[in-house]
Amino acid sequence: MAPLIYPRMAVIGCGLIGSSVIRAAREAGVVGEVAVADASPLARERITALSFADQVTADPAEAVANADLVVFAVPVMAMGEAARQATAAFKPGATVTDVGSVKAAVAEALAEAVPETLFVIPGHPIAGTEQSGPDAGFAELFQNRWIILTPQPRQDAPYRKAVERLTQFWTALGSNVDEMDERHHDLVLAVTSHLPHLIAYNIVGTAADLEEVTQAEVMKYSAGGFRDFTRIAASDPTMWRDVFLANREAVLEILGRFTEDLQALSRAIRWGEGDKLFELFSRTREIRRDIISAGQESAEPNFGRDRGKH
Amino acid sequence: MAPLIYPRMAVIGCGLIGSSVIRAAREAGVVGEVAVADASPLARERITALSFADQVTADPAEAVANADLVVFAVPVMAMGEAARQATAAFKPGATVTDVGSVKAAVAEALAEAVPETLFVIPGHPIAGTEQSGPDAGFAELFQNRWIILTPQPRQDAPYRKAVERLTQFWTALGSNVDEMDERHHDLVLAVTSHLPHLIAYNIVGTAADLEEVTQAEVMKYSAGGFRDFTRIAASDPTMWRDVFLANREAVLEILGRFTEDLQALSRAIRWGEGDKLFELFSRTREIRRDIISAGQESAEPNFGRDRGKH
Repeated sequence: MAPLIYPRMAVIGCGLIGSSVIRAAREAGVVGEVAVADASPLARERITALSFADQVTADPAEAVANADLVVFAVPVMAMGEAARQATAAFKPGATVTDVGSVKAAVAEALAEAVPETLFVIPGHPIAGTEQSGPDAGFAELFQNRWIILTPQPRQDAPYRKAVERLTQFWTALGSNVDEMDERHHDLVLAVTSHLPHLIAYNIVGTAADLEEVTQAEVMKYSAGGFRDFTRIAASDPTMWRDVFLANREAVLEILGRFTEDLQALSRAIRWGEGDKLFELFSRTREIRRDIISAGQESAEPNFGRDRGKH
Repeated sequence: MAPLIYPRMAVIGCGLIGSSVIRAAREAGVVGEVAVADASPLARERITALSFADQVTADPAEAVANADLVVFAVPVMAMGEAARQATAAFKPGATVTDVGSVKAAVAEALAEAVPETLFVIPGHPIAGTEQSGPDAGFAELFQNRWIILTPQPRQDAPYRKAVERLTQFWTALGSNVDEMDERHHDLVLAVTSHLPHLIAYNIVGTAADLEEVTQAEVMKYSAGGFRDFTRIAASDPTMWRDVFLANREAVLEILGRFTEDLQALSRAIRWGEGDKLFELFSRTREIRRDIISAGQESAEPNFGRDRGKH
C-alpha cells in the first residue's frame, strides 16, 4: 500500500476512465476523500449505487472545493467548459490534470480556465476499452500501461514538484509515466490511436451500406479481421467525435499519408504487382515481430479484450 | 468419435490451415491414412518431426494417389499448378477441395486441372491466426467456425452426395457449413476479411514511414487501437499477396467504396462537422451490439488471439 498522495481527489466526468481512476486510486490507497461531478443524472445514480465516491454532485465547483488533485475526465471538447464552471472553487496550489486523448487543445482550454495559482499538468493514460459509463471502469485498467504527461513549459521548482507528485500517483496505480511535448503527443496518438479508430468506424460504416452483402452476412463471417474493427468501432461516439475535432490537424495529416499509401496499394493490386504487395506485407510482419520481441505484448493490453459488459 | 468418412486424405500444402485440418481430422477420427505434400524441405522436416502424417512427400501426385479426399491448402495463386502436378494420379470418384480465401479464381483453376471423374467442391474455412507454417496449426482451429463451400452449379446425385460427405467431414471437425455462390463469397470476404487485412497492412506501413514519429514510439503507444492492426498485418505475406491478386475485382470495388466514405469523413473533420461524425460512430456502435446479441461473440474467435508461437 502506497502512502496517501492526495488527501482529496475530485474527478469531473465519471465514465470508463474517470471511474477506473477512482477505483485504482482507492485500491492503491493514494487518495483520501473522493468527490465526483457528473452532468448526467443517470451516471450520478450509478456512481451512488457503486459507492466508490464520498461526494456525488452535478456541479464541478462543489467537487473541486478543497481538492488537492482534480482530474478532468469528460470528452475533450467539454474540458474547457467543465473547468470554467469550477474556476472560482479550486483550492490554490492544487494540481489539475485530465485524461483526454488529445493534449494541445485540452492544455490550452485548461490553462485558460484555471487560476494561475494551480498546477495544470495535462495527461493521457493509453488505456481503455470500447465500453463506457461508470460501470465500465475497473481498478486494473492502468496496470502496466503508459501515462503520457504533457507538462507546461515551465521549470520552476513548485511546478516540477507537482509533476513529480502526479507521476507518483500514476505509478502507484500501476502505470509507467512518460513526459512529452503536447504537439508531439497529438501526432503520435494520431498514428497509434486516432487513425485506427477512424478507419475502424469507416469500414464498419462502409460494410453496413453495401446493397449486395447483407448485414447478417457481414456479422456471420466477421471472424476474418472485420471483428476486430467492429470492436474498435463500438467505442464511445461522443468521446471520439471530440478527439477528431480537437486533433483535426494531426489526424488530417496522418490520414493524408495513409490515403496516399492506400492509393499506391490499390494501384499495385489493379496492375497485378505482386512484388510490391509482398514487400509491404513482409515489412509489416517484421514490425509485429519487433513489437513482440520488445516485450510490448506481455503487457496484456486491456484494449481489445472484451470484458463482456454489454 | 465420428465414423471414418475418408479412408485416405491427402493435404497439399501444410501450413497453418493444412496442418490444422490434419490435426482436427485425426482427432475427430474421420480419416484413416493421411498423406502430405509440401514443396518446402523445411516444412517437410517439421511435418515429419510432428508425426501427424503417414506419408510426407514433395510431390502432389504421390500424395493424391488413392486419396478419397484431396485438400489443397497452398496459397490461392498456387492452387492450379499444384493440382496440375497431380492430374494423372487422382483416384477416380475422389473429392477435391481447398481452403483458399478466394473462391472464383480457385474454382476455375481446380476445375481445369482435375479430371472430370472427380468431384471438385471448393471450400473456405473462416478461421485462422496470423501465424503460419506446420507448427502453427492446432486441432481446435475450426471449432464453431464457419466453412463456406462453393459447389459447382451441378445438381446430379453423385455430386450432391459428395458435397454432403464433405459437409459431414467439416461438421465432424466442429464447424458450421454454409453453401454459397463463389462470386458472392468473394464479395462478402472482400468486406469481412480482405479489406480489413489490406487496411491493416497499409496503416502499419504508413506508421513505419513517418519521419516525425519513431518506430519505438509507435510500438510503445500502440495499445490504443494500433496493436490490433499490427497483429492482422503480421499475417502470411505470400498468402495475402495471392488473395489480393486473385480477388482483385471485388477488393478494388469494396476499397473504392471505403475510400469514398473515408474522404467524406475526412471532409467532415476538416469542416468541424461533429454531427456527421457522431451519427456514424453511433451507427457503428449499434452494429457491434447486434453482433454480440446475435451471439457471434460467444464463438470465441481464434483470429485475434495470440497463441504465443513466435
